[in-house]
Amino acid sequence: MTGLLTVVGLGPGGPAHRTRAAEDAVRDAQVVLGYHAYLAACADLTGPHQNVVLSGIGAEQQRAEDAVRTAAGGARVALVSSGDAGIYGMASLALSAAATLPPARRPSVRVVPGITAAIAAGALLGAPLARDFACLTLSDLLAPWDAVETRLRAVAAADLVLALYNPRSRGRPWQLHRARDVLAEYRPGDTPVGLVTDAGRDGERIELTTLATLNPASAGMRTVVIVGAAGTSRLGTWLVTARSLGARS
Amino acid sequence: MTGLLTVVGLGPGGPAHRTRAAEDAVRDAQVVLGYHAYLAACADLTGPHQNVVLSGIGAEQQRAEDAVRTAAGGARVALVSSGDAGIYGMASLALSAAATLPPARRPSVRVVPGITAAIAAGALLGAPLARDFACLTLSDLLAPWDAVETRLRAVAAADLVLALYNPRSRGRPWQLHRARDVLAEYRPGDTPVGLVTDAGRDGERIELTTLATLNPASAGMRTVVIVGAAGTSRLGTWLVTARSLGARS
Repeated sequence: MTGLLTVVGLGPGGPAHRTRAAEDAVRDAQVVLGYHAYLAACADLTGPHQNVVLSGIGAEQQRAEDAVRTAAGGARVALVSSGDAGIYGMASLALSAAATLPPARRPSVRVVPGITAAIAAGALLGAPLARDFACLTLSDLLAPWDAVETRLRAVAAADLVLALYNPRSRGRPWQLHRARDVLAEYRPGDTPVGLVTDAGRDGERIELTTLATLNPASAGMRTVVIVGAAGTSRLGTWLVTARSLGARS
Repeated sequence: MTGLLTVVGLGPGGPAHRTRAAEDAVRDAQVVLGYHAYLAACADLTGPHQNVVLSGIGAEQQRAEDAVRTAAGGARVALVSSGDAGIYGMASLALSAAATLPPARRPSVRVVPGITAAIAAGALLGAPLARDFACLTLSDLLAPWDAVETRLRAVAAADLVLALYNPRSRGRPWQLHRARDVLAEYRPGDTPVGLVTDAGRDGERIELTTLATLNPASAGMRTVVIVGAAGTSRLGTWLVTARSLGARS
């Protein structure tokens, strides 16, 4: 007998930006797996009747395999992550792990969508993502930096608004500096830039700056950097991208 | 005395994928404005003590101005839309309209994020957006088609996964044909493509196909088309993009 694996996106922070489907999936699970910070974000939904399994932040592949194996054994399993589990999240790993099992042993898998960091940051900044944007990660853990930079140049040249995930961490201190210098080849120095750290969590921080004055040191692991396009303006404390193309607002 | 305007994203369909913050904002409003289909999507949250104001689908600019003016008069106003209000939604128009008022008459505005169509579609398809993607609209109502096509070429050349909004409507019957032909210049015919129509609503429809066999006639106004990149594979009935770059999963 095979069970059900639900890969759940909890959204950016506490209960306010969680969906009902995400809450139901966690409540209904017999086993809940996740990195400890994600389990903390849904601690109000779990209880002593459930088996809550913590894992380290680096152990994503292992966590996906554990979740699939537990569901294959017949349990209802929730694999939780912050934001949306499909975007730089656990869904890809879990579905790939499930696909390695023979069909008869493969559990049902479903993905419950969540508010991803770019959308949470966009709402706090105003409406920077109002017309055509790209989400790129600056992490070069799973890709050569050259490939990351090639994508950055293509998107910059196409004048799309950019949401940069994983801009900076202790182990990756220079990538955002480099990205800023690359983008400055394509966009004017007064291009509006917004940095949102810990959206929807304690310590939420919003910084408005420009491409010329962007200080990479103000970004961290939980920051999303949104870089405007030609249609993006600063309106008071808001960043707003015009919905029509070709005019600045 | 100025009031508060909350621009609310209701997510793709019914209550399952709404956030608590979105529900609270609608419940707490004195005036709720929206296109009738969006008001229907939150009819369970409104009541006879509220003033619910319907408007036509084309009248977006007018609706934004009405919402801002009503809030400037002192009311708590919710301006609702489906998906996320920041992505091809009402937030940009509302913030721009508010910015035209003198600061003393400007209402407070906040944006409550929602699950946008690309994320809802991604979750139903599996995990196609797992690494680097762009959202583009194929609508040429607010842009010359040449500008749309230029962006499409840039994103296709950069090998980003694509989420295409507004792929087709009665008044725009040829744009998705043309987009398919453009993409076929950059990506192989067996590139996986997923079409999701009415995600999370009655009549939800999912179609898996390839770039070579994509039939534009199966898309409509409420379809999102997701076009894979080199890292995207079909795993059974799932579309999954590898999180590492450079390997085909």
